[in-house]
Amino acid sequence: MKARIQVTLKDGVLDPQGKAIGHALGNLGFTGIGEVRQGKFIEIELAETDRERARDALDKMCKQLLANTVIENYAIEV
Amino acid sequence: MKARIQVTLKDGVLDPQGKAIGHALGNLGFTGIGEVRQGKFIEIELAETDRERARDALDKMCKQLLANTVIENYAIEV
Repeated sequence: MKARIQVTLKDGVLDPQGKAIGHALGNLGFTGIGEVRQGKFIEIELAETDRERARDALDKMCKQLLANTVIENYAIEV
Repeated sequence: MKARIQVTLKDGVLDPQGKAIGHALGNLGFTGIGEVRQGKFIEIELAETDRERARDALDKMCKQLLANTVIENYAIEV
């Protein structure tokens, strides 16, 4: 089973990388660009076949390693 | 309009960051972990309200700045 995890910065947390992308897009001539936020995208191949158990395991992985829950949110897709 | 872009490494391109995550998850006691790949996730707030024109602009942004199309794929969601 293939799982996808999106890790994004929480609202209100400063995102200098996103800001840099926004400025660069402006410099390239793109207009109408508002806020840009950058996050991480992780794809994991799991041996587990049960969706619920996979989701539980992925939730633990996010809390323990993949996301810093003080400043980041995560979304799991299985 | 809020757009989401996922930038992932193409199949066959070595992903040391993904490998490191896979090893770390194994060290934490998680089992049944197969291949792990890490990519980027970008959220852009756009002034454009037309979906098709937004998609065209985002496609140009990806080709010019957000993705290195030699080694990366991108997926746009508007």
